[in-house]
Amino acid sequence: MIAIAILGHGVVGSGVAEVLRNNAEGIAAKAGQSIEVRRILDLRAFPDLPYADLFTTRFEDVLEDADIRIVVETMGGLHPAYDYVKACLLAGKSVVTSNKELVAAAGDELLAIARENNLNFLFEASVGGGIPILRPLDQCLAANEVFEIAGILNGTTNFMLSKMIHENMSFEGALSLAQKLGYAERDPSADIEGHDACRKICILASLAFGKHVHPEEVHTEGITNISSEDVRYAAACGGVIKLVGRATQTEDGHVICLVAPMILPADNLLADVDDVFNGIMVRGDNVGDVVFVGRGAGKLPTASAVVADVIDEVKHLQARKYLFWGAGEEGYVRDYRLAPAKMLLRFSCQKDAGALVQIGRVFGDVRMISIPDAPEDEVAFITPCMPEYLLTEKIDAFTGMTLIKSLRLFLVDGIEQM
Amino acid sequence: MIAIAILGHGVVGSGVAEVLRNNAEGIAAKAGQSIEVRRILDLRAFPDLPYADLFTTRFEDVLEDADIRIVVETMGGLHPAYDYVKACLLAGKSVVTSNKELVAAAGDELLAIARENNLNFLFEASVGGGIPILRPLDQCLAANEVFEIAGILNGTTNFMLSKMIHENMSFEGALSLAQKLGYAERDPSADIEGHDACRKICILASLAFGKHVHPEEVHTEGITNISSEDVRYAAACGGVIKLVGRATQTEDGHVICLVAPMILPADNLLADVDDVFNGIMVRGDNVGDVVFVGRGAGKLPTASAVVADVIDEVKHLQARKYLFWGAGEEGYVRDYRLAPAKMLLRFSCQKDAGALVQIGRVFGDVRMISIPDAPEDEVAFITPCMPEYLLTEKIDAFTGMTLIKSLRLFLVDGIEQM
Repeated sequence: MIAIAILGHGVVGSGVAEVLRNNAEGIAAKAGQSIEVRRILDLRAFPDLPYADLFTTRFEDVLEDADIRIVVETMGGLHPAYDYVKACLLAGKSVVTSNKELVAAAGDELLAIARENNLNFLFEASVGGGIPILRPLDQCLAANEVFEIAGILNGTTNFMLSKMIHENMSFEGALSLAQKLGYAERDPSADIEGHDACRKICILASLAFGKHVHPEEVHTEGITNISSEDVRYAAACGGVIKLVGRATQTEDGHVICLVAPMILPADNLLADVDDVFNGIMVRGDNVGDVVFVGRGAGKLPTASAVVADVIDEVKHLQARKYLFWGAGEEGYVRDYRLAPAKMLLRFSCQKDAGALVQIGRVFGDVRMISIPDAPEDEVAFITPCMPEYLLTEKIDAFTGMTLIKSLRLFLVDGIEQM
Repeated sequence: MIAIAILGHGVVGSGVAEVLRNNAEGIAAKAGQSIEVRRILDLRAFPDLPYADLFTTRFEDVLEDADIRIVVETMGGLHPAYDYVKACLLAGKSVVTSNKELVAAAGDELLAIARENNLNFLFEASVGGGIPILRPLDQCLAANEVFEIAGILNGTTNFMLSKMIHENMSFEGALSLAQKLGYAERDPSADIEGHDACRKICILASLAFGKHVHPEEVHTEGITNISSEDVRYAAACGGVIKLVGRATQTEDGHVICLVAPMILPADNLLADVDDVFNGIMVRGDNVGDVVFVGRGAGKLPTASAVVADVIDEVKHLQARKYLFWGAGEEGYVRDYRLAPAKMLLRFSCQKDAGALVQIGRVFGDVRMISIPDAPEDEVAFITPCMPEYLLTEKIDAFTGMTLIKSLRLFLVDGIEQM
């Protein structure tokens, strides 16, 4: 029998307790011994729960209990989660967390402390909820040089975009439905402004390429300005809009990382990942493209990923798991505008010969795109592929035309797929 | 440094040697030490290779070399692969294999020998080529009770069906194209008759449910009688035909396993898995549905999965991996005809009132399906859902009508998705 503690009894924490109880027998068989929740830290009391006696409001009750070898952190947020996790590792306890904010902010530091103390620090649930992605990335693809990761990493925004795409909902309508169904929080900014997806692509990029990528180094755009017109323009291009997090390794060993709405071709596997599902594509030199799809959030999917990590730590109380990355040096994350881009541009202008000539002169070979009910004074086209900073320069050089919206096409290896 | 041997220098074996050479540095970092190929067993000589001196035709050169701690088997076929693998395990060497025929036939026995000798026997590459599936199934989903696995497990037939669906090719045309491109062998029977997919679903079912499922216990249908008309009927149903391997756990702890062409609804994630790609759906009680997609075959994808196993065994020379299943008892695999089924039935008959009345009387509430250019004397419909043996009885009871074709719909939990 091994004793563990759970920090936080919210959605994920209570799910962890539930999974450990409901699947106790199978879990003990997998882990080689039974797992007992000794303590649950929460400021609230839950007197009606069958395990009400496990609750404590004092972190010291966890930290100072030498029997507790593994601590599960599901509180979320940076503080006090960071302080508690660090203290547990320094006290010789292995840690499992589902806290993407924590891992994206301080993964390198916490992994280093875990390694120094011959402990494990695992966080499969921090990306993709219940989808096994970090462990396959680290282990199964160990024989590959991974050079690109791209994914739909946020279920809330994917649900909203799915409603906008397939049911012609407005952004506002989709958001209030998501809130009604409990997919979006009252303050949805972390989701709809892309910060949640950003944290996840940071964790994936850190693990895949071996050096920490911090969220503040990653250009992040959300879906707040995506309109029904954009959705119809994307359809006219032969694609769908998804909020994509993407990280690519450059040939000289740097990384380029970006979170933004992008137009994916309809036949791309990620284009079919709808509703609250997440999908993550990993590209390796030997394996080619591998895609992982599943529920990226939710109590039990996330809890099952946490418990799988707990099982793995029980099995590796002596031998460390090798999952690791180091700190990234100054300039490791390159300016995303250096990467090749191809955009759908919507301009408001007088639709005369002069405007069309200017488009051809500035951009060269464009593909005009139209939707049936576009305003009279709107012109839209897909640009050729070029480094994004060049595209921006060309857009700025336009005269007499106002940019309504620019949307990136989803490129793989800089190659358009549509 | 750790010494390994490779048995067989065909497509996969030569790929393993190539990946180990090309990614040597990254692999050594992941494994914690460098990996040296000491011997390659093949009846042929390869005098022009830079590592020509490693070849031997004598298995004893591998078996009796105590330095060789890990043996990679990529010969394929049951004999002598089985004998060699068993001998290696008994001699204290861990084994990695890509040989699905071997694992499907004798996985339980070889796993038991590995366990008795405190060794590892890993075979990630035997299912889904480079897609990480067995390890995620075993580890990441450890906190789930997995109750269903369904997948497109054979790239050759999936390529052929994709051509038939999207390019209106005939079965014969698709087969000869697959042969021309090297996706199908000269004798394609193992692929097109479903035996390859059968071996893979046996391995998946054995691992997921803990007891060995033998290929000869699994009802297996291939795609040899799938016609262009079937493809168009599937489209008229709102779906596509895929060769699916499926295993479900019954409530009393038995397993039902089947390989057959099925009609998947167009919005199912597996329906979009085209060409030589494989897709595997795993359903767990906590995580819900998780789907893994990637190239299911090919030299480098498969080799990268083999090498990932080798790395894992290098890291676990002392501690065993827990991947394991036992022998299955008599009657463990249930008759697939007990499972609920729903079929598209195509009959040849006089299309008069009598025929339609008979259909209603025998089957109850059916959904008629038609395609534009169907023969005059053909009637097609989707049956209600019922145990398959009842469906068969009803079909047999029909008079004056000849069954042209029956095609199962892809049900999840016995529930139609269309």
